[in-house]
Amino acid sequence: MTFTAQIKVMPLKDLLDPQGKAVLGGLQNLGLTGISDVRIGKQIDLKIEASSKEEAHQMASEASKKLLANPVMEMFEITII
Amino acid sequence: MTFTAQIKVMPLKDLLDPQGKAVLGGLQNLGLTGISDVRIGKQIDLKIEASSKEEAHQMASEASKKLLANPVMEMFEITII
Repeated sequence: MTFTAQIKVMPLKDLLDPQGKAVLGGLQNLGLTGISDVRIGKQIDLKIEASSKEEAHQMASEASKKLLANPVMEMFEITII
Repeated sequence: MTFTAQIKVMPLKDLLDPQGKAVLGGLQNLGLTGISDVRIGKQIDLKIEASSKEEAHQMASEASKKLLANPVMEMFEITII
């Protein structure tokens, strides 16, 4: 069976996010002053061939740990569809 | 009230995603051969001060159209929490 894994990789909460800060400045320059915090991460969609949802989750988790996310600076969340 | 908007910005389906293709090659080199397609986009979390969920959605949509997503190459989805 083919599953779709959606992996959300975000910078850890305690770390500064300079890209987000720059975008926040840009939004405020555009007049969107109601926005107070911006954090920018990655969204990675994988197509996985696996025999069960659990196996697909495990493969997505392995891919995240080995390549997609840097655990020192980022956290990741996996959703299997 | 403060709302959190989660904006998912992905490359359009019909377009090539060279970053995703490179990551797919990397995953296969790591032995994760069950993965057949990778698409990489951005995940942007905003904190929005608004009087209603609808207003927060509208602000997030305006921010996406004006700055966060390039409609020629990307689509975006907004979730308000």
